[in-house]
Amino acid sequence: MLIVQKYGGTSVGTTERIRAVAERVRRTVAKGDQCVVVVSAMGHSTDALVTLASELVDKPADREMDSLLATGEQVSASLLAMRLIHIGCPAMSLTGWQAGIETEAVHKNARITSIDTNALKTLLEQGITPIVTGFQGIAAGQITTLGRGGSDTSAVALAAALEADACEIYTDVDGVYTTDPRVVRQAKKLDYVTYDEMLELANLGAQVLHPRAVENAKHFSVRLIVRSSFSEEDGTQVVSMMENQMEERQVVTGIAFERQVARIAVIGVPTKQHGLASIFSKLAEHGVNVDVIVQSVVSEAAVDVAFTVNEADIDKAVEVVETLRNGLHFERIESAAELAKVSIVGAGMISNPGVAAQMFVTLRDTDIHVQMVSTSEIKVSCVIPAGDVEAAVQALHRTFVEAEREADLTVTES
Amino acid sequence: MLIVQKYGGTSVGTTERIRAVAERVRRTVAKGDQCVVVVSAMGHSTDALVTLASELVDKPADREMDSLLATGEQVSASLLAMRLIHIGCPAMSLTGWQAGIETEAVHKNARITSIDTNALKTLLEQGITPIVTGFQGIAAGQITTLGRGGSDTSAVALAAALEADACEIYTDVDGVYTTDPRVVRQAKKLDYVTYDEMLELANLGAQVLHPRAVENAKHFSVRLIVRSSFSEEDGTQVVSMMENQMEERQVVTGIAFERQVARIAVIGVPTKQHGLASIFSKLAEHGVNVDVIVQSVVSEAAVDVAFTVNEADIDKAVEVVETLRNGLHFERIESAAELAKVSIVGAGMISNPGVAAQMFVTLRDTDIHVQMVSTSEIKVSCVIPAGDVEAAVQALHRTFVEAEREADLTVTES
Repeated sequence: MLIVQKYGGTSVGTTERIRAVAERVRRTVAKGDQCVVVVSAMGHSTDALVTLASELVDKPADREMDSLLATGEQVSASLLAMRLIHIGCPAMSLTGWQAGIETEAVHKNARITSIDTNALKTLLEQGITPIVTGFQGIAAGQITTLGRGGSDTSAVALAAALEADACEIYTDVDGVYTTDPRVVRQAKKLDYVTYDEMLELANLGAQVLHPRAVENAKHFSVRLIVRSSFSEEDGTQVVSMMENQMEERQVVTGIAFERQVARIAVIGVPTKQHGLASIFSKLAEHGVNVDVIVQSVVSEAAVDVAFTVNEADIDKAVEVVETLRNGLHFERIESAAELAKVSIVGAGMISNPGVAAQMFVTLRDTDIHVQMVSTSEIKVSCVIPAGDVEAAVQALHRTFVEAEREADLTVTES
Repeated sequence: MLIVQKYGGTSVGTTERIRAVAERVRRTVAKGDQCVVVVSAMGHSTDALVTLASELVDKPADREMDSLLATGEQVSASLLAMRLIHIGCPAMSLTGWQAGIETEAVHKNARITSIDTNALKTLLEQGITPIVTGFQGIAAGQITTLGRGGSDTSAVALAAALEADACEIYTDVDGVYTTDPRVVRQAKKLDYVTYDEMLELANLGAQVLHPRAVENAKHFSVRLIVRSSFSEEDGTQVVSMMENQMEERQVVTGIAFERQVARIAVIGVPTKQHGLASIFSKLAEHGVNVDVIVQSVVSEAAVDVAFTVNEADIDKAVEVVETLRNGLHFERIESAAELAKVSIVGAGMISNPGVAAQMFVTLRDTDIHVQMVSTSEIKVSCVIPAGDVEAAVQALHRTFVEAEREADLTVTES
């Protein structure tokens, strides 16, 4: 088997942790598997570099920032390689350019365009484990970086290019949970999720996998495994729908939630104005990220457009929409902060009608007032008062996860 | 003018210092000069990386150590480049491989074999100041480092390859002194020294220039200037003999000294045994660095061989020589610690007979017992008791530097 193992910043945060990672890699190789390791920068070392830069310049040049930050992974890769060599496991650290990772010629958020796997394959053939710096590549001789979650992206891209049998993402949690265990004590680790569910669950508590990496994994059918570098637990496998359907599944895989949501409603937008296009182009232009969008028809002549933004952006968003008043001739703007979004996620939802209704019933029985609803094929989201989020998540977890599990148990025992 | 400026670790030790260096580079460019900057790693950042490695491995793999340490200069180069861009001076950081610095394919102590100056020249033509990481290069796709004083070597090699008009070495002292100002208050900054004098003075107090860089500068006739990044002083120019002879010079340029010297004497080595060869091959084999070597003929049948080593190596050296007893049939070994070496250095010495005698007279008059003497074309060294080193240096400074200076002043004033 060829396995790509990616270790995040916490997993290589201290030399003590690097020893543990080296031991895990050594064991993988000792079992007879080939291993390509991808590492992030040690713990908070990237933050330390960012602080240095900020002491010198408000907005550092992108190229120089990439060159600065790329050193973080080079440090952890070299340290891990020397430790592996020390414990008798031949290894070699490789920077982005040494590993043949070509990217677009942009800085700070480049996409990988191709990987020349020759260097890696030669090392593997010689029995040497390559330790590749995550998060970085090269474009026309310049060091580039891949932006947030870049090391996950590096790992998935390497797994795809090398046609690896699996891509293990090591982090400080032991997998993906049905919801945040800090909110619901009964939250249960999932053995499997689909790529799509993983995307919808991305903002669940610990952000274990970057969405871009998940998208790439889905696109190249890379078998992803999220697991802890601190334990021997099996973790959660992220697989395609196909594979997933072969086993009995719960309708709802997990309950996701997000706090600090604000709702803005533009009331009475004349239909002929095509308000949606103007409003959301303008917001994007000003860098306001919009999440849920709902449009409802009030009359033939006018519509109400409502959307959510992060609470921090509420004033800016209202201001931006206000500038459109003369063009759009809307009636008024309403805004409300201190909201939250709670979602049920599950690939099984498509074939199970009535799941949304069950969600609404659960929330009504918990006396929670739903302010907005938005649905996708594998998700139903409700915007609710921020103060109700824990009660909502606990109730939904009982309805969709715990109840179903009890049912399963009954069946198994009969 | 094309100037290579090298800034050492103390000069870029903090972001505050990097601001100051950026300002100096900006001013150089604003004057109309072209500038290539070479930087060391920030202050003690290299030590921090070495500590990390030592927490993992006793003897880290050389290749990985190079890859680890090379990040230090990449950090300071990126930071300096972004600061320069910020203050309106176009700049770009370049790692060893980006700057085209090719080395031998060895790690930790590689020599530069060639520099492809195309990238640098292109940047200079575009009015962009290259900020090159010192201490490192590339060999067959592998990151290599140049060993101690490597950044000085990088700077001199770049100055030679680019045929620069000068190579300015910025450090935390404002030049080369006639002796250590901590020992002799009247020590005087030298405006000029020759390459050879610089080599002999290398171990003088602050080790301002690495010998290898001086040798290279001499070989390629690079005009070296040692100066402080903390002041606007002119510094000391390191020039060739030719240039230097054109002006009136003192016979003795400076007084060098070294503490922690031990002397070992092998007494009564039969002449036919070729003792010198065996003794010093064996010592080199065991990694004992030998400094002064003196052989005196006792009789036709036997010689006495005496040499100095660092005090820390005295036991090891005696042990090594002891293993040769059966082969060499020498009479006995004598050893003495707590010694020091004091030297007078000056390119003018060759044409001034009697300088050595003047040194011995000065030491005798100061009641200092000379234990060993060794001479070169531009240096006379005496091994003396460690307790006498300050008195010796002060007396020699009075005889050769202060007295001569007074004479100069008299002439000038007449």
